[in-house]
Amino acid sequence: MKDEKRNNLSMLMDFYELTMANGYFCCGFKDKITYFDMFFRKIPDNGGFAIMAGLEQVIDHLNNLSFSDEDIEYLRTKKIFNEEFLNYLKNFKFECDVWAIPEGTPIFPGEPIVIVRGPAVQAQLLETMILLTINHQSLIATKSNRIVRAAQGRPVMEFGSRRAQGPDGAILGARASYIGGCTGTACAISDREFDVPALGTMAHSWIQMFPTELEAFKCYAELYPSNCVLLVDTYNVLKSGVPNAIRTFNEVIVPKGFRPAGIRIDSGDITYLSIKARKMLDDAGFPDCKIVASNSLDEYIIRDILMQGAKVDSFGVGERLITSRSEPVFGGVYKLSAVEENGKIIPKIKISENVEKITNPGFKQVWRLFDNESGKAIADVITLYNENIDETRPYEIFDPEHIWKHKTLTNFTAKKLLVRIFERGKCVYKLPKLKDIRNYCKEQVGTLWDEVLRFENPHKYYVDLSRPLWELKQEMLK
Amino acid sequence: MKDEKRNNLSMLMDFYELTMANGYFCCGFKDKITYFDMFFRKIPDNGGFAIMAGLEQVIDHLNNLSFSDEDIEYLRTKKIFNEEFLNYLKNFKFECDVWAIPEGTPIFPGEPIVIVRGPAVQAQLLETMILLTINHQSLIATKSNRIVRAAQGRPVMEFGSRRAQGPDGAILGARASYIGGCTGTACAISDREFDVPALGTMAHSWIQMFPTELEAFKCYAELYPSNCVLLVDTYNVLKSGVPNAIRTFNEVIVPKGFRPAGIRIDSGDITYLSIKARKMLDDAGFPDCKIVASNSLDEYIIRDILMQGAKVDSFGVGERLITSRSEPVFGGVYKLSAVEENGKIIPKIKISENVEKITNPGFKQVWRLFDNESGKAIADVITLYNENIDETRPYEIFDPEHIWKHKTLTNFTAKKLLVRIFERGKCVYKLPKLKDIRNYCKEQVGTLWDEVLRFENPHKYYVDLSRPLWELKQEMLK
Repeated sequence: MKDEKRNNLSMLMDFYELTMANGYFCCGFKDKITYFDMFFRKIPDNGGFAIMAGLEQVIDHLNNLSFSDEDIEYLRTKKIFNEEFLNYLKNFKFECDVWAIPEGTPIFPGEPIVIVRGPAVQAQLLETMILLTINHQSLIATKSNRIVRAAQGRPVMEFGSRRAQGPDGAILGARASYIGGCTGTACAISDREFDVPALGTMAHSWIQMFPTELEAFKCYAELYPSNCVLLVDTYNVLKSGVPNAIRTFNEVIVPKGFRPAGIRIDSGDITYLSIKARKMLDDAGFPDCKIVASNSLDEYIIRDILMQGAKVDSFGVGERLITSRSEPVFGGVYKLSAVEENGKIIPKIKISENVEKITNPGFKQVWRLFDNESGKAIADVITLYNENIDETRPYEIFDPEHIWKHKTLTNFTAKKLLVRIFERGKCVYKLPKLKDIRNYCKEQVGTLWDEVLRFENPHKYYVDLSRPLWELKQEMLK
Repeated sequence: MKDEKRNNLSMLMDFYELTMANGYFCCGFKDKITYFDMFFRKIPDNGGFAIMAGLEQVIDHLNNLSFSDEDIEYLRTKKIFNEEFLNYLKNFKFECDVWAIPEGTPIFPGEPIVIVRGPAVQAQLLETMILLTINHQSLIATKSNRIVRAAQGRPVMEFGSRRAQGPDGAILGARASYIGGCTGTACAISDREFDVPALGTMAHSWIQMFPTELEAFKCYAELYPSNCVLLVDTYNVLKSGVPNAIRTFNEVIVPKGFRPAGIRIDSGDITYLSIKARKMLDDAGFPDCKIVASNSLDEYIIRDILMQGAKVDSFGVGERLITSRSEPVFGGVYKLSAVEENGKIIPKIKISENVEKITNPGFKQVWRLFDNESGKAIADVITLYNENIDETRPYEIFDPEHIWKHKTLTNFTAKKLLVRIFERGKCVYKLPKLKDIRNYCKEQVGTLWDEVLRFENPHKYYVDLSRPLWELKQEMLK
């Protein structure tokens, strides 16, 4: 019973979405068509870009939106909901249009990454789940991509399930980490469910179960000779762990016709220990034996230990990835941008004393302009939805806040980023395979200039408004 | 199909638990009885204590442990698992004993908060789920308790679903926040599922849907006159929001025979705005109208704005609570502490060059000693499981690292903290109601000295070892 309940996440929403939806229903706004944008304002860790992720779970959620008798009964106990509204929920049929930027795409502040168009009473109910899903996975994919880039081509494994914020934090976090570039995860269920490759060898408890470290190693090597990675820091890495590993490789792995896969160091100074261990392994005739490091790592520590010459071949990254510890919040918001009246789109704007918090009104599209010569992304331009950017003509972009800063582009390719996901409640988007999303992410990050990729103080990538959108906004601000 | 899969979280484990379990199975350790302790080393935010939470979900998980044909088939594709082991999993029957500290109890570094006793092959498989569940909920309950204490008796609502790390982060996070002392949540599903009271009124989009703020307020007031909280910061709090709210109260709420419930301020300087708004409401004859504040709050900001005289009656706290933003990781670990040989308990210890990382060996109990005069908690003592602390005699506690620091207690009550949860695989614990856990938490936090409650640089609460345990540890270290 409990499990049945958990399956249906339709009620995972802020209660005010229900009071508002009931209100729209009662005030005659039930069928009023609204446009909501999801966008974010700040890149985590002061990075140069974020990675879009979570769309598959948003689609799953929208495909399964329904309210059980139990949900309706629960709402009825609140004694504030109109019976016709409850009946509407009971027979809920999803009717919205949804556009989104595909998973794995680099995304920037201010641009709509999801747009929902539909009846007020429906669009409002999607707020929490869209935000929470995209916020969470984009946060982790963005962090993963930073860590993977710090590792400079060395594989990074996601090892953080035990420190994740709940089961979904572990399972979906492993998925998002993979999109961002991780090679795999320690989490078995994410492998089974999402084909994120799972790997893992032993914990310290394995070693402690045996009378000696050597016996523990040998027993493990007998069982798993083809992929034998030994954890060498239970007692003393250099005096005990590595010598015992070498002995195990010589006495078990090699006689069986295999080569040792690796050793793992999970504590102590990784730089110092890995350099010493590398030499010991090389001297013992195992230059092909990999060294895996896994102790409270993140992009900064990985960058630093590699700069110091650490001999690490791959990284296992735990809590600092799965919770994005240095910045565990991705601040996406969901704001009304337009309504339709008699079939005409009436843009809406939210004014704020904080200029950066003023929203972009209207139904919009996001374009990415690529330089044809270098293949690099030059700028994103937010336009009204029906605008076109003609690649055959020079196109002028300008800073929407400091409009004297402008630039005319020629020889560029303009790509629309928002693609149609739902049409009148029906999913019309073919989900790519996770592996393809990961490849696409890597390729798209490759179109960003090095200046944008920098971990600290990156160059601010241009996200401009088209002239028609800018003029509309100025007019509404007046 | 997908949903069915998600129901069963048995495979939510680190892959190495499976390779190790298979290894124990193959090495003849299948039925070897092991003891594992979960404990943590550091209190988040440098606080003086943490709050235990998540036990109900651990119990659910253990009650539902089973491996589907699909799980087995998935494992078989890995081509490393023994068929007899897979068969064992297929017919898995949980046989472990589990002890735990009840939810809502203040907990301290180093003491076992969960103990698992059972066959190696089983106890190892529980590692990830026990850690992730207790780590997550204890993190959020601890943060919630800090924020609630900062609010000095004013109600705190959990508002963070949209920024949570996945659906469970929102749902279980709301549960844990409630344990820590929050009054309720914005998350509807947590109300339906866990009876955490959900509340909520309106977002900015409600205001924007209407031609004017006043019309939006009046329409809402007509619908929900008995609990009318108006969001006053869409345009301008003092020039527009509060005056329109007052007009709505006068023209709709009062004529209907109700009193206004409140106004909510979600941006700007809360201290300044709340003081001004309070005066406007008082002058208008609504001294009973509450002011709710909800903009990027946490314990530090709440403490500061209250010190500055902010006139806030209740708080809505979002991302900084639901992710425990300032420290999003609760670092619980799961370590082997003993094995049984011929029915005799053989303690195990994990040595580390970092003295604080050395584990406490053996099968243990945790006692809390309360001063009978003040009712306050004096110290926790970790003992061997079968030790007794005789309250009728003076009892000497001493610092396990600096043993010359000691103290003799008289007139105290000694309470065992670890209670039996599972006995040979069967749950023998009656789960308290969530509301009772919340009350228990409040009461138990009340037994801590003010010095321990301090947000920064609190007094370090004593967690001592009994003499027999201390002597065992010293002997093993030699």
